[in-house]
Amino acid sequence: MADRVAALDDPQLRVFAPLIYVAWSDFDLDAEERERVLAAMAAQPWLRPAARQVIEAWIDPARPPGAGELARLRTLIDHVATTSSDRAKASFARVARGIAADGDARVAADALAQDLGMFAGSEITAPVARAIPRTALSGWLDGDHAEVRARARAWLATAHVAYGLPVEDHRTIVRGWLFDLAATGLGRLAFPGVTSTDDLAAFSAMFEELGHGDLSLLVKVGVQWGLYGGAIWALGTARHHERLAKIAACEELGCFAMSEVGHGSNVAAIETIARFDPATRELELHTPGESARKEWIGGAAHDARWAVVFAQLEVGDARHGVHAILVPIRTPDGAALAGVRTGDSGHKMGLNGVDNGRLWFEHVRVPVANLLDRFASIGDDGTYSSPIASPDRRFFTMLGTLIGGRVSVGAAAVSAARAALAIAVRYAEARHQFGGEGERKLIDYPTHQRRLLPHLAETIVLRVAFGELRRRHAQTFATPGADTRELEAEAAALKALASTRAIEAVQAAREACGGQGYLSVNRIPQLRTDVEIFTTFEGDNIVLAQLAGKAMLGAYRKQLATGGNRAVLRAAAKRVASVLGVRRAGTEPTRDRGFQLAALRFREDHLVETCAARIKKRLDDGLDGEAAILEVQEHVVAISEAFAERSTAEWFAARESAGGEASRELIARLGDLALLSRLERHAAWFLETGYFDVARSRQIRREVEKLLRELAPHARDVVDAFGIPDACLAAPIAFFDPAHPVYP
Amino acid sequence: MADRVAALDDPQLRVFAPLIYVAWSDFDLDAEERERVLAAMAAQPWLRPAARQVIEAWIDPARPPGAGELARLRTLIDHVATTSSDRAKASFARVARGIAADGDARVAADALAQDLGMFAGSEITAPVARAIPRTALSGWLDGDHAEVRARARAWLATAHVAYGLPVEDHRTIVRGWLFDLAATGLGRLAFPGVTSTDDLAAFSAMFEELGHGDLSLLVKVGVQWGLYGGAIWALGTARHHERLAKIAACEELGCFAMSEVGHGSNVAAIETIARFDPATRELELHTPGESARKEWIGGAAHDARWAVVFAQLEVGDARHGVHAILVPIRTPDGAALAGVRTGDSGHKMGLNGVDNGRLWFEHVRVPVANLLDRFASIGDDGTYSSPIASPDRRFFTMLGTLIGGRVSVGAAAVSAARAALAIAVRYAEARHQFGGEGERKLIDYPTHQRRLLPHLAETIVLRVAFGELRRRHAQTFATPGADTRELEAEAAALKALASTRAIEAVQAAREACGGQGYLSVNRIPQLRTDVEIFTTFEGDNIVLAQLAGKAMLGAYRKQLATGGNRAVLRAAAKRVASVLGVRRAGTEPTRDRGFQLAALRFREDHLVETCAARIKKRLDDGLDGEAAILEVQEHVVAISEAFAERSTAEWFAARESAGGEASRELIARLGDLALLSRLERHAAWFLETGYFDVARSRQIRREVEKLLRELAPHARDVVDAFGIPDACLAAPIAFFDPAHPVYP
Repeated sequence: MADRVAALDDPQLRVFAPLIYVAWSDFDLDAEERERVLAAMAAQPWLRPAARQVIEAWIDPARPPGAGELARLRTLIDHVATTSSDRAKASFARVARGIAADGDARVAADALAQDLGMFAGSEITAPVARAIPRTALSGWLDGDHAEVRARARAWLATAHVAYGLPVEDHRTIVRGWLFDLAATGLGRLAFPGVTSTDDLAAFSAMFEELGHGDLSLLVKVGVQWGLYGGAIWALGTARHHERLAKIAACEELGCFAMSEVGHGSNVAAIETIARFDPATRELELHTPGESARKEWIGGAAHDARWAVVFAQLEVGDARHGVHAILVPIRTPDGAALAGVRTGDSGHKMGLNGVDNGRLWFEHVRVPVANLLDRFASIGDDGTYSSPIASPDRRFFTMLGTLIGGRVSVGAAAVSAARAALAIAVRYAEARHQFGGEGERKLIDYPTHQRRLLPHLAETIVLRVAFGELRRRHAQTFATPGADTRELEAEAAALKALASTRAIEAVQAAREACGGQGYLSVNRIPQLRTDVEIFTTFEGDNIVLAQLAGKAMLGAYRKQLATGGNRAVLRAAAKRVASVLGVRRAGTEPTRDRGFQLAALRFREDHLVETCAARIKKRLDDGLDGEAAILEVQEHVVAISEAFAERSTAEWFAARESAGGEASRELIARLGDLALLSRLERHAAWFLETGYFDVARSRQIRREVEKLLRELAPHARDVVDAFGIPDACLAAPIAFFDPAHPVYP
Repeated sequence: MADRVAALDDPQLRVFAPLIYVAWSDFDLDAEERERVLAAMAAQPWLRPAARQVIEAWIDPARPPGAGELARLRTLIDHVATTSSDRAKASFARVARGIAADGDARVAADALAQDLGMFAGSEITAPVARAIPRTALSGWLDGDHAEVRARARAWLATAHVAYGLPVEDHRTIVRGWLFDLAATGLGRLAFPGVTSTDDLAAFSAMFEELGHGDLSLLVKVGVQWGLYGGAIWALGTARHHERLAKIAACEELGCFAMSEVGHGSNVAAIETIARFDPATRELELHTPGESARKEWIGGAAHDARWAVVFAQLEVGDARHGVHAILVPIRTPDGAALAGVRTGDSGHKMGLNGVDNGRLWFEHVRVPVANLLDRFASIGDDGTYSSPIASPDRRFFTMLGTLIGGRVSVGAAAVSAARAALAIAVRYAEARHQFGGEGERKLIDYPTHQRRLLPHLAETIVLRVAFGELRRRHAQTFATPGADTRELEAEAAALKALASTRAIEAVQAAREACGGQGYLSVNRIPQLRTDVEIFTTFEGDNIVLAQLAGKAMLGAYRKQLATGGNRAVLRAAAKRVASVLGVRRAGTEPTRDRGFQLAALRFREDHLVETCAARIKKRLDDGLDGEAAILEVQEHVVAISEAFAERSTAEWFAARESAGGEASRELIARLGDLALLSRLERHAAWFLETGYFDVARSRQIRREVEKLLRELAPHARDVVDAFGIPDACLAAPIAFFDPAHPVYP
C-alpha cells in the first residue's frame, strides 16, 4: 500500500479519516487508541477486507505518518468536509467522536470537527452495535439444531465476504476459511457414529447456515466433508473410517472424482477404468481417453491431496460397474503424484473461490485396500463379491450417497436466496424513492412488494420443508438396509425446485436494488453468479426432475397394479372428488390452508394420471419406453415440480402451528402468500383443467395483492428473524440509514 | 511467461504442441513456418487472447527453445498422444499436418505422428475455414443498412472477446478496441448532418451489430458517441458541433454526467447546480452534497477528458431546471482538473471493461459558451431565454435525446441474446447426450427445445421491431419540432420488453449448456452478467414501463375526451367485437397471424380500459392522481408490456412477407412460435377475461409444442443467418465437432 492517503479516499473509508487524523495527531498512537479504531471498524460490517487492510495499515504502530502524510490527510478531510452534505458530515463526525472516546483525543476530535464545521445542526449519538432480535419467529425457523446453527453463525460472523478478487486470492481466502471452520470442530458433525453422536441432520443444518455466507466456502465444505469424507463414511468400512477425524479437521484434504467431461449427468457411462491386478493385489486406474477426463472436480485443481475416484471396476474378464476407490493424487506439498495429471477447469461465472479441476490417471496403482468396500470387495482369492447381488441395485445404493448432497445443496441455495432478500428488504425498508411526496419507501411500491415478498414467503416454506427432508434423510441413513428410492426422488424433486426458486429470488433482489444491486460491494452480484450453478451441479435440474417424475409414475403404476380395478376406480373417484371440491370451493376462503393443499394435490395427481395415460397410449402405439417418455418429457418434469410444491406445502402446514402465539399469525400469512403464489403461477393450468373457475382465479390474484400489502410492513422483521450475521449481509445498502445516508 | 511448456499444457493449446515441435525441430523457425502457425491459430476462433499469447511466445524467432525445452515439449506430446482418444489424436495430427504444409516439415510432421500412433484409422483432411452461409434469411434480417452491418461485423471479427481479466486489463483492452473501431470511421455515423449523410438509423444498426461482441465495448461506444457526442449533437449548436469530428475519431473522449446517486431515475430532482456569474459570464458548477454526486457515469472513472454535465441552471434568482453543460474534467494526460474530483464506482457484476465512475464539482467554472444552447441560452445581457416557453416541455425535449439510447440499447440487448442462443444452439446441435441409444442430440430433447427455441423466435420478432422503431426514431429526429412523446413511450416500452426478454434468453442459454455454460471460456457467463444491467440502465424497466403505461392511458383519455360519447361507445363496441371474435376463433387456425394479432390487441385494449376505470374509481373516491396510479401500479406496468407485445408483433407481421420465397415459410413459423408463446405466457389472463376458452388455451400449448418439433431441425440455420462472426461466438462449445471432440 504505497499511498495510504490516496487509499483512504474511498467512499467506504473516508469516514475513518478524521479518527485516524485524531489518533495520530500527537504523532503517537497508543494501544488504547488503536483498539478504539479497531472496534469502530468492527462495528461497520459492510467494510470489505481490502478496506480493512487500508485502516490497519494506518494504525500500524510501526508506521507513524510523517508530517507530509498528515498534512495530506488533513487536506482530504477538509475536502470531504466541504463537499459533503450536512448529514454525511454528521455521520463523519459521529464516528470520529465515538472513537476518540474521551480525554485529549476527544478534545482534538471536537476541535477538528468544529474547525470543519461538521457539528452544525446535528446531534451526536454513539454508534449502537446492532443486536439481532431473536424473536419467536427465529426460534420457529431454527427448529431443531438451534445450537449447531448458533455455532455456525458465530463462525460466519468472523468471515467477511470478499469480492472482485483475482482467482488466486479468492481461493487463498476460502482455503483459509475452511481451515478456520475446521478448527471449530463443526466438520466432525459430518460423520455420525464415527466423529459425532448427532445424526446427519445436524451437519446439514450447519451447512444450511453456511449458505448465508460466501458460497465458495460452502462448496469447499461440501466437497471436503459432504462428498469426499461422506463417500468414505458411506461407502467405506472401518479401515477407511480411521481417516475421518483427520478429514473433519482438514488435516487431509480430498476431492470427489465422479463427473467426466463426456458424461455429465450419466454416471453409469463413465469410462475411467480400475483394473484389478491379482499379481500385486493392486487396482490400476486409467483414463482411457479425453472424454473420460474427470471434470469439474472441486479441489482437484489445487488443494486436494486425495481423491475418491469413481471408475468401472474390472476383475479378470468381468466388469462390475462403477465403484469408488481412494487414490492419493498429490504429495503433501502439492506436487502431482506419478501418473496423475491435474488441470484447472478455468475461470467460471461464479464460485471462483473453488478450485474446480480435472484429473487424468495414467496406469496409477493403489492397493486393493483402497477400494471403498462396504458394498463390494475383492477377496484374498481375487474374486469379486458384493452383499447386493443386482448390479443395478448396487449402483443405485452407491449413488444413494449423493442424496445427502442434494438435500444440503437445495437447502443452502435457499439460504443464499434469504441472504439476498435480506439485503434487498433492508434497503427497500430504509431507502426512500424521490417520488411525488419524496417520502415513499421502496417497499411501499406494489411492484416492489410483488418483486420481493412472494420469494421471501417461498424461502420460508422451503426452509421448513428441508428441515423435514433432512430429518427423513438422517432417519433413512440411520436404518441399515433401508430403501432409499423414495427419499432419492424427494431429494431430487426438492433440490430442483429449491435451486430454481432460489435463483429467481436472488434475481428479484438484484432487480429490486437497481444499479446498487449490480455493484459487487453490495454482495448480490456474487450471490447471483455463485448460486447460478446450483441448478446444474449435484445433478442437473432437468435430469433430477425426470428422475423424480419417473419415480412418481412408477409408484402410480405400482399402486394400480397392486390395487387392481379398485385402485383405478379409487384414483378416478379421487380426481372427481377433487374437481367437485372446487365447485364447492367457490365459498371456501382462499386463505384456507385446506383449499390450497387440495389444489396442489389435485395438480400433482392429475399430472401423474394424465402423463401415465399419455405414455400408455404411446406404448400401445409401439414406441419403446424410453421414446415414449421422451415425447412427454415436459409433462414428466412438471410432475416433479408439482410433487415438490405439494409435499413442501404439506410439510410446512404440519409445522406452522408450532410457531407459538406471538408469530403464528405472521407465519400463517407467509404461508398463504407462498402457497397462493404457487397457485397463481399455475393459474392457466388450473383454469384449463376446470379446477378453478374464472372467479376463483381472479380471487387468488386479488388475495395475493392483499397479502403483499399486509406483509410489507413485516418484511424487515422476517428477514431479521433469519439471524444472518452482519458480516454475511456485508452490503452497504443493507445498512443504509436514511438519517445518515452513506452511499456505497 | 516463464515456462512455455507448462503454458502449452492447456486444453485449448495442446493441439498446437506437435506443430510447434515440428516447426522448431530443426532448431530454426523460418518466416514461412511462422506464418503457417499464425494462420492455423487464426482458424481457431475460440482461442482466448491469453492462449494466443502462449503460441506467439513459442514462435518468437528471438526465443528458440533449448534442447531441454524441446525434450519436455516432446514429453508433453507423448503424454497427450497416449492419454487422448483416437478422435482427439486425429484432430491433433490433422492440425499438425495442416501447418506443416509440405517439404521437410511435412515429412517431420508425418514421422512424428506415426511415432505417436496418431494417424491410426483416421483420415486427414485440411481444416476448412468456416464460411458463414448468407441465406435469404440473413438478407431479410439485415434489412436496410446491410452495408453498415457488414462493416461492423468485419471489425468485430478482429476483436476477440476476453474474459476473467483483472479490471484494469479488461478496461485497457476495451479502450484499445474503442480506438480501433474509431479508426474505421464508423463513429461518424452518430452525427447525421455533421459527420454523416446517413440518418440516425444507420448508427443504431451498427450499434445493434456490436451487441454480438463484448458488451463493455458496446457501452463505451454508447457513452462516447451515443450519449456524450449525441448530447452535443442534439442539444448543442454549431459552435459545439465543431468538435463532433474529433469525438467520432475518439480524439476527444467524453462522458455523460446525468445520474446522481441520490436520484437514480428521477432526473428532474438532480441537485448539481450550475450558477451563472454575470460578472465573468461563466457558469459555476457545484455539487452541493453527497447525494448529488454523479454516479455510474461511464468513462468518468478514467478515460473521459470531458463531460456533458446535467445541472440545475440558476440565473440571478431564477432556477430554470435541468440543463446540459460541457465541462472539461481532466487534462490530456488524465489528471483531474482543479475543482473536479473523480472516483471509481467499483467492481460490478459485469461490464467491468467500462470505467464507471463518480464526479464531484467544487465551484468549477466554465465559459457560458459551454452551455449546450439549442433549447436555452443566456444572452449578452445575462437574461435567460428559450424557444420552448414551458419549463416542463423544455425538460422533456432535452430528455428526448435519451430516446436514441433506449432504442439502441434495447436492440443491442437482443443481439446479446442472439449471441448466447447461437452458442447454445450450435452446441445443442453438435453434442450428443449419452442417453438410451447414445445417439440423441441435445436439440432433440423436448425440454431443450422448450428452453431455447421460443427465445430464438422472440429475438427475431424483436429484431425486426427495432428496425421499425429505429426508422421512426430517425424520421422523428430529422423532422424539426416533431412531437417526440409517442416515440418516447414506444421506445420505453420496447426497451423494457426487449431487455427483460434478452436476459431470459441468455439465462436459458446458460441453463441449456449446463456446466459448460458456467465456464467463462464459453462466453455465456460474460454475456449473462453484462446484459443483466440492461434492465436498469438507460432507464429502469419498471420506471420506463410506468412512463409508457401512463402515456397509453393518457392517449386513451384524450381519445375519449375528444370523441365524446361516440368514442366511448366505439371503444366498448371494439371490446365486445374482440370478445365475440374469440367465440368465432374456435374455428380459426391458431397459426393465423390475424388471430394472434387480434388477441394481443385485445389484451392491450382491455388492460388500458380496465386500468382507466380502476384509476377513475380511485379519483372519484378522493385519491390524488399519484396515489391512484400507485395503487394500480402493476396494472400500469402490464399495459406497457401488452403495448410492446402488440406493436412489435404488428411490425413483424408487416415485414414478414418481405422474406422472399426461400425463407418465407421459416419466417412464418418463427413468427408463430414467438407470438403463440406470448399468448401462452398470458394464458391465465386470456382465460380469466374469457377471450380464450379452455379448448383454445390447450390448442395454443399443443401448437407451441408442434412448432418446437418443426423448428428444431432449422435452429442451426437460423442462428447461422445472424451472421455473428466466429470471434464473437468465441466459445469452444460453439465449435464442438462430434467427429473430433475437443473439450474446452
